[in-house]
Amino acid sequence: MAKKLRIGVLGVGRIGKLHVTNLVNSVPDAEVVMVADPFLNDDSIAWANSLGITNCSKNSDDVFANPDVDAVFICSSTDTHAEFIVKAAEAGKHIFCEKPISTDVKVIEDALAAVDKAGVKLQVGFVRRFDHNHKKVRDTVASGILGDPAIVKVTSRDPEAPPMSYVKVSGGIFLDMMIHDFDMVRYLSGSEVTEVSTFGTIKVDEEFAKYDDVDTAIVMLKFENGAIGVIDNSREAPYGYDQRTEVHCRKGCVQVANDLGDTAMISTADGVTCTKPTWFFLERYNDAFIAETKDFVDAVLNDKDVPVTGIDGLMPVKIAIAAKRSLDENRPVKISEI
Amino acid sequence: MAKKLRIGVLGVGRIGKLHVTNLVNSVPDAEVVMVADPFLNDDSIAWANSLGITNCSKNSDDVFANPDVDAVFICSSTDTHAEFIVKAAEAGKHIFCEKPISTDVKVIEDALAAVDKAGVKLQVGFVRRFDHNHKKVRDTVASGILGDPAIVKVTSRDPEAPPMSYVKVSGGIFLDMMIHDFDMVRYLSGSEVTEVSTFGTIKVDEEFAKYDDVDTAIVMLKFENGAIGVIDNSREAPYGYDQRTEVHCRKGCVQVANDLGDTAMISTADGVTCTKPTWFFLERYNDAFIAETKDFVDAVLNDKDVPVTGIDGLMPVKIAIAAKRSLDENRPVKISEI
Amino acid sequence: MAKKLRIGVLGVGRIGKLHVTNLVNSVPDAEVVMVADPFLNDDSIAWANSLGITNCSKNSDDVFANPDVDAVFICSSTDTHAEFIVKAAEAGKHIFCEKPISTDVKVIEDALAAVDKAGVKLQVGFVRRFDHNHKKVRDTVASGILGDPAIVKVTSRDPEAPPMSYVKVSGGIFLDMMIHDFDMVRYLSGSEVTEVSTFGTIKVDEEFAKYDDVDTAIVMLKFENGAIGVIDNSREAPYGYDQRTEVHCRKGCVQVANDLGDTAMISTADGVTCTKPTWFFLERYNDAFIAETKDFVDAVLNDKDVPVTGIDGLMPVKIAIAAKRSLDENRPVKISEI
Amino acid sequence: MAKKLRIGVLGVGRIGKLHVTNLVNSVPDAEVVMVADPFLNDDSIAWANSLGITNCSKNSDDVFANPDVDAVFICSSTDTHAEFIVKAAEAGKHIFCEKPISTDVKVIEDALAAVDKAGVKLQVGFVRRFDHNHKKVRDTVASGILGDPAIVKVTSRDPEAPPMSYVKVSGGIFLDMMIHDFDMVRYLSGSEVTEVSTFGTIKVDEEFAKYDDVDTAIVMLKFENGAIGVIDNSREAPYGYDQRTEVHCRKGCVQVANDLGDTAMISTADGVTCTKPTWFFLERYNDAFIAETKDFVDAVLNDKDVPVTGIDGLMPVKIAIAAKRSLDENRPVKISEI
Repeated sequence: MAKKLRIGVLGVGRIGKLHVTNLVNSVPDAEVVMVADPFLNDDSIAWANSLGITNCSKNSDDVFANPDVDAVFICSSTDTHAEFIVKAAEAGKHIFCEKPISTDVKVIEDALAAVDKAGVKLQVGFVRRFDHNHKKVRDTVASGILGDPAIVKVTSRDPEAPPMSYVKVSGGIFLDMMIHDFDMVRYLSGSEVTEVSTFGTIKVDEEFAKYDDVDTAIVMLKFENGAIGVIDNSREAPYGYDQRTEVHCRKGCVQVANDLGDTAMISTADGVTCTKPTWFFLERYNDAFIAETKDFVDAVLNDKDVPVTGIDGLMPVKIAIAAKRSLDENRPVKISEI
Repeated sequence: MAKKLRIGVLGVGRIGKLHVTNLVNSVPDAEVVMVADPFLNDDSIAWANSLGITNCSKNSDDVFANPDVDAVFICSSTDTHAEFIVKAAEAGKHIFCEKPISTDVKVIEDALAAVDKAGVKLQVGFVRRFDHNHKKVRDTVASGILGDPAIVKVTSRDPEAPPMSYVKVSGGIFLDMMIHDFDMVRYLSGSEVTEVSTFGTIKVDEEFAKYDDVDTAIVMLKFENGAIGVIDNSREAPYGYDQRTEVHCRKGCVQVANDLGDTAMISTADGVTCTKPTWFFLERYNDAFIAETKDFVDAVLNDKDVPVTGIDGLMPVKIAIAAKRSLDENRPVKISEI
Repeated sequence: MAKKLRIGVLGVGRIGKLHVTNLVNSVPDAEVVMVADPFLNDDSIAWANSLGITNCSKNSDDVFANPDVDAVFICSSTDTHAEFIVKAAEAGKHIFCEKPISTDVKVIEDALAAVDKAGVKLQVGFVRRFDHNHKKVRDTVASGILGDPAIVKVTSRDPEAPPMSYVKVSGGIFLDMMIHDFDMVRYLSGSEVTEVSTFGTIKVDEEFAKYDDVDTAIVMLKFENGAIGVIDNSREAPYGYDQRTEVHCRKGCVQVANDLGDTAMISTADGVTCTKPTWFFLERYNDAFIAETKDFVDAVLNDKDVPVTGIDGLMPVKIAIAAKRSLDENRPVKISEI
Repeated sequence: MAKKLRIGVLGVGRIGKLHVTNLVNSVPDAEVVMVADPFLNDDSIAWANSLGITNCSKNSDDVFANPDVDAVFICSSTDTHAEFIVKAAEAGKHIFCEKPISTDVKVIEDALAAVDKAGVKLQVGFVRRFDHNHKKVRDTVASGILGDPAIVKVTSRDPEAPPMSYVKVSGGIFLDMMIHDFDMVRYLSGSEVTEVSTFGTIKVDEEFAKYDDVDTAIVMLKFENGAIGVIDNSREAPYGYDQRTEVHCRKGCVQVANDLGDTAMISTADGVTCTKPTWFFLERYNDAFIAETKDFVDAVLNDKDVPVTGIDGLMPVKIAIAAKRSLDENRPVKISEI
């Protein structure tokens, strides 16, 4: 393998551009050798060129066929993820894939089988694991100083609802938004989720009902290790991106607050004002995006385990499907049912 | 009625002594004219005398028969509450009763009927409504500035588990501990709970299993106004009494943190240390105990509505019974079932 | 001596009423047997009676002559403090005196000599020493865990400027307001102040200039133990009473923030708002007023050292005079000059 | 001028490497065309090459003579700054110079004259102006919403004392460390300092005395606009880099706390622990270093005013000299004396 990991990027929409920029500027051991996107246009080609990437294609197969590509970043639309994983695996490329791999459990399992067969590495883009705050919660719990975890809590609220065009195809709040939190509770607790119970409501926009979706949801969880947990999601938090986690253990509790734009406190006769949380995931998890990329590059170059595996890609999808079924059938649902 | 409200206190255990002390020292419009307790001894008589209360009896009927008593404080054991309410009502005394009135819905309803018939006032001791923090959450939500409530969250953890002798007779975590939180979510949301779903576990002490109880529980709730909510309880939080509430609304979120012993921040090479939350309810809700008493005295003397009614005493018991049934039967339970 | 300390109170203005109320309601070992005030009127007599105090006089000498009075609380205007101390001492009464004893060093020294000669106890009302926050700073420093103190900082700002009628006679910002902070730095550092340097300005109200006063001031200090410190004062902080202290030591730093009305955080699109500091000293130091009184009563009844001595009453006056001289002469001034 | 600003860097020690890395990775409009350092070795050449910089010289004159260099970054030792500024100006290069320009007022004035004569741009590296926290304080004050500034406060403490080899040549605490704070108070207040008064002490290491230096200092300041201020410095804060600022104005107060490594709060029976401040300036001001560089590049490419001028480089040196004189002569010193 080359001294630098040579990467081909599939999809240069918002998240693809983010990864490319990070790889170019902040990951010295990586080199982006080409990008492919069926919607490539003059603007995106100019953007790629400005970063020193001259090999741009509209055909994703050009990436898989390129012998100079050691690894691919799959940043295309969700419906292409599994197919690209299989193609990359068959071409012997290591794979970084944005979440979710698919919204269909069988499709994910087939993709993971192809990865296993090819013996390549696969990392799934659950970026929040690399956030300084959530990582501190996880590390504190994992250190054992607080004893056995009892209650795992995640609050996750987006600043504003996505457009209905997206809601229509997103798979719903559980597969599109809360899936990050399903990964997070597995990460924080160090244990598998065994059962969920869901309450949901529509408080943000009545249009969500059209797509058999809710915009506000709470999911309770049971874990293999006996802990219980809860996640609350809202599609809209006008004060900004609300991302808090907490684990209550036998000997104590660890919790993290939001990152704020600054630490200013302004006191006047009208009150005391602090700065709002960072606006959305691009600001909040910027350093985490870089960290997950570095870890992937390091895992491939130095043959280490990737920090987020294919199973980590599969389980949150199962939990999300169970959560939706719990909402639909108004009963607790075991993950083993899925 | 006398210019001062003349009060007879039934039960001078921990909570009875607390109310007597507050009435004597901090409620100028009240006068404690007698106390009654079947376990009255030299110590408690001396204590009463030191506060200027010379009429002490072992017979609760002496209180109901005393024409100088305008109102009673029922601070005796839970199993006597409903009976004492009925007796007081029949004697034409106004009533302040510690929570819960009973753990049996029918018994409560009968007691409330007796109160209604007698036309006396009844206030139930859900003291947390009078806490500066929770009241600020409620007032902010009720003001409407944040818009429609969507998610109601309560964290409530005791510093240490009660003795098993108490667990045996307490009615379990839902009727004994989380009942305060069931009142709190009604108070914060301004809406009735319609359905609950419960997950519970044992993480503090295996002995809880002997009494068909759990020591760690999460309950999800649906409200009439379409909001959803969640309460988490633990019998043990070694860092102190953990009492936090939060309401996420359409236009914003209001949340309160714990009261701390002081605002000190000590920074050394080993880390930054802050002071722990106040240890337990006597410290945390001390001012609230005084405030609820003042409000009761004011309501009686000036013929105002009491701030916590008989219905407020009934509903949390129904929710608690539903929560336990949800745990036992592993399904969501509607309050209308109870 | 009687089992309860029998107290006569001189002066029942704002601060006198506060002490009487605290003594009656919150200090079980004390009994207020009489009050005296030349401005006694029907209202203040009715107020005293409502607290069970029937002996009310317009003549302060009635207090000194009363054999049932064990101790006096001097809450009258500053110009009477020293005289009343001498009279009380000569009558063999123990003395609690509001600050400052006098604005004249010689007068204070004479009063302290009378106290010494009579062998009675004298406590001066530097109430902030009894505040939970500042006490935590002091106790942390005194414990030695942070090592040798290096920098002592006090921020002290009133919510609004006093009326000019008061400014005219108050003795100025250093003797009337910052005197509390001069006591505080001695308390926090555990060391005597040896030298000060002052910068002052007028930012709140130009009228302060008429009385040779400033409304905003910073004083640097040197301590016997080699530490240095700084106090900043403003006559006006529209957000409330700003009372923060900090000590930076060799091994770490301890600091306290303001007490807030509640812990609420309200987040909306407009920002994140917290609750303002408690408004003024009656709210902020309410518990401290009770604590200092209890300590005095305990010191007298059980023959212990008082927690704030006559020397503690003298030194801040010397520092205040030095601070004013530093401002006037624009040079550092040694306390030994005073 | 080229579309990208072509930069030559003088000095690739710690701060030089930092700027080069930032320019290469985070400033798209800049290109580092060469570096020069008399101590250049194989390691630093390899490092430069890894960033795509192949032109490396031991002779600084190669930079001034290079027609492909539009601007220089002066990151060499302080004693070379002024000379390099003059040479760069004479060569028509724009200049970014690390602080301080010199510790000699006359030398600075001569360098600024050379810059003026050449008509090139000069920006001085007072990086803290670009920090999100301090900038928020400044912007809030400058907006006028808080009214007229009255008290300006800066706390600035390094995590650990520098080696004595550095102390020997640094110019002392005022010229080496507090100079940043002298810039900060000018920035925050929007006004010039007119007079200072200094108290200093040795609490960290007795060796500072050998170099006629102190390790702990407080400086009071007067401003042209009538405000007063105070800075406190310590060479050692074992809990990390302590960087807080505050401005109290007529209508309110704005203050910023330290940036922490994360927002975790860990609560156990032993206490509540938060994360320490970021360790030192490389972490704390990392984004600010990038921001100041971007602003410089933008100012040159688009002919805008630089955000930190030559005068901004001169004034803090004058204040530092006055502060040291105040310490030595134990009297307030006017800046006009310097």
